[in-house]
This record gives sequence, C-alpha cells and structure tokens, in this order.
Amino acid sequence: MTTPRRSGPDLTQAIMRTTLELGQELGYARLSIEAIAARAGVGKHTVYRRWPSKGALMLDSLLSLSESALDYPDTGDVIADLRRQIYEAVDLLAGAPFSPLFRALVGEAQHDPGVATALNERFIAPQAAKTAARLKTARAQGQLSPDFDLDLAMAILSGPLYFRLLITQEPLTRDYVDRLLDTLFAGMGPRP
Amino acid sequence: MTTPRRSGPDLTQAIMRTTLELGQELGYARLSIEAIAARAGVGKHTVYRRWPSKGALMLDSLLSLSESALDYPDTGDVIADLRRQIYEAVDLLAGAPFSPLFRALVGEAQHDPGVATALNERFIAPQAAKTAARLKTARAQGQLSPDFDLDLAMAILSGPLYFRLLITQEPLTRDYVDRLLDTLFAGMGPRP
Repeated sequence: MTTPRRSGPDLTQAIMRTTLELGQELGYARLSIEAIAARAGVGKHTVYRRWPSKGALMLDSLLSLSESALDYPDTGDVIADLRRQIYEAVDLLAGAPFSPLFRALVGEAQHDPGVATALNERFIAPQAAKTAARLKTARAQGQLSPDFDLDLAMAILSGPLYFRLLITQEPLTRDYVDRLLDTLFAGMGPRP
Repeated sequence: MTTPRRSGPDLTQAIMRTTLELGQELGYARLSIEAIAARAGVGKHTVYRRWPSKGALMLDSLLSLSESALDYPDTGDVIADLRRQIYEAVDLLAGAPFSPLFRALVGEAQHDPGVATALNERFIAPQAAKTAARLKTARAQGQLSPDFDLDLAMAILSGPLYFRLLITQEPLTRDYVDRLLDTLFAGMGPRP
C-alpha cells in the first residue's frame, strides 16, 4: 500500500463515514460490508474486527453523528431537557437523510437476532439508562410523579415515536414531540 | 377440477388458514403467494384478486383469528375495557405462535410501501378509530382527562407495546400491560 497507515480512531471514523455515504447511495438492503471496505480502502476483515454485522456498523455510524451522544442536558427543567434530547434523536434517526437507513436496520432486527442485539446493546440500553438517570433527578426535585415507574420510561417516551416512524410512517415533527410530552406528563386520567 | 367449487367466503377463509399454516412452517421470508395458492389448491390469480401482497394477506389472516375483531368492550370502566382489548391484541400479534410472522410483516413495511399501506389501512386506521370512539365515551363519563389529545391515543397506548415487540423484543406480558395502563392514566407529572 502506498497510502499512509491510518491509526485506529481515524480508521474507525473513515469506515463510519463511508458507511453513511454508501448507505445513502445504495440504500440499506444493497449495502454490504464488502462494498464499504472497498470504498474505504481497507480489507473486509478490518471492518469485521470492529463490527460484527452491517447493522452494528450502521448503528454506530448514525450515532457517531450526534455531537451530544444523545445525552440529556440538565437545565433544571425536565420537560425542556427531554424535549431537547428527543428533538435531537428525532432529527438524527427519523429525519432526512438517514431515516430510511435506520428504519431498514430496525426492519432487519425483526429477522436477524444479531442486529436486534446490536440495536439494544449499542443504543437502546445506554439510552434507557440515561433517561432513567435524568428522570431520577427530576423526581428528587419534585418534577416527576413520585409513583412514576422508571422501568417504563423508555417505552412510554420513545414508543410513540417508534410507532410513528415504523407503523404509520408519518413525519416526526417537533409539534408532535411537544404534544406527546404535554400529554404524557398530564396523564390520560381525569384530575382527582 | 374435480373438487367442488368453493364459494367466495369459504375460499377466502381457506386461503387465510393456509397462509397461517404455511407461514408457521416456512417463516414469513420464505412464504410466497405461489406456495399458498398451490397448498390451497387455487390459482395464484385467485389470491392476487383478493390481496395485493403477501403482507396484506398475512395481516388479514392474523386479524381473522380475533373473534371480537379487536373491538373494545364497553362495560362502563374504560381502563378495564382497554386492558381487555390490549390483552387480546397482544395475545394475537405478540404471542406464540404468530409473533414472528407479524414482526416480519412490520419489518417488510420498512422497505415495501405497499405493505406499509396495507398495515395502516387494514389494521392501524380502523383500530385508531375504535380507540378514539371508546375514549370519547369515557371522556363524556368523566373517566378521561378532558384535555386528553385523542389524536395521540393510538401512539400512546400502542407505541410502548410496539417498542417492546420490535425494539427490545422482550415478552409482552399482562403485567407489562397493566403497569403501562396505570402509568399512562396517572401521568408522568407530579399531582398539582
């Protein structure tokens, strides 16, 4: 090889950039680790050494675009902080240009257990832990119902987003996120 | 043909039964309308005349198993009625033996717009209308917050179920449904 040897983090970044670029060109179904490796100018074993599957690589590539790593801010206002984080997640995963790639990855997780595991280990579980931590602080500050079941937090907050992304396939607007947060905090039941 | 001519509704039932039977044997990915037609002893055009796609046929076949057509009862207790309907939907679509077929169908909807349309027109939209109607009655009886946004009802009630079915892929237990309903009615916010 006449190109200079790239170090680990640079190489990882280059492979993820190539994944997103080629994913947009070809679509998720036609994308392959072989094609990504060829475009990035590395051997396919270099890719497989870091990522066990196309799904895991795509997921890491998408998440690498988030400057905040989808962390929650803590401004002292839990609804404002949830809103800001959800806006960012929705812009990244449910907006142009990457929504078709993320949707296809979740589709693949329905018949490929390795991709389902990657999705949960690399994204959902860390996100659930961050969500629970932010809500625990809010609870201590009296901004959350003391009875709220923290184990349900991810499902309740993100389930309606996935419903719209994967099932009705309508756009995930900021207005929708706002209405959702208002409704979830107010609750469905009548005030006593 | 030496077999007696089957009338429309009988034929429709026979094709749907065959779809579920063959779907369980082969899995969704390997199932084809050709194979269903052959097993049911009809021409494939007879199937295509009724269903535009494998997804539409599978969806109708699954829904045909619900004796109640997934209607909501009205006993006067909205939480009990939602619970009963959600139990039934979850048993049908998220339990053994049909959950893999339904999950694969939703997976296919991520890259096949025709399947996404079938899912919404044949299942989600009618279900959303039934849900809104049941909740309107509840609101008139003071069992629902007067501010509750009915347009969000399906997303809020079923989003967390799809989250568990498609994303974390954990079992959808009755306990989970109960906790979900309690939490959604109580709301995340502190009582004023």
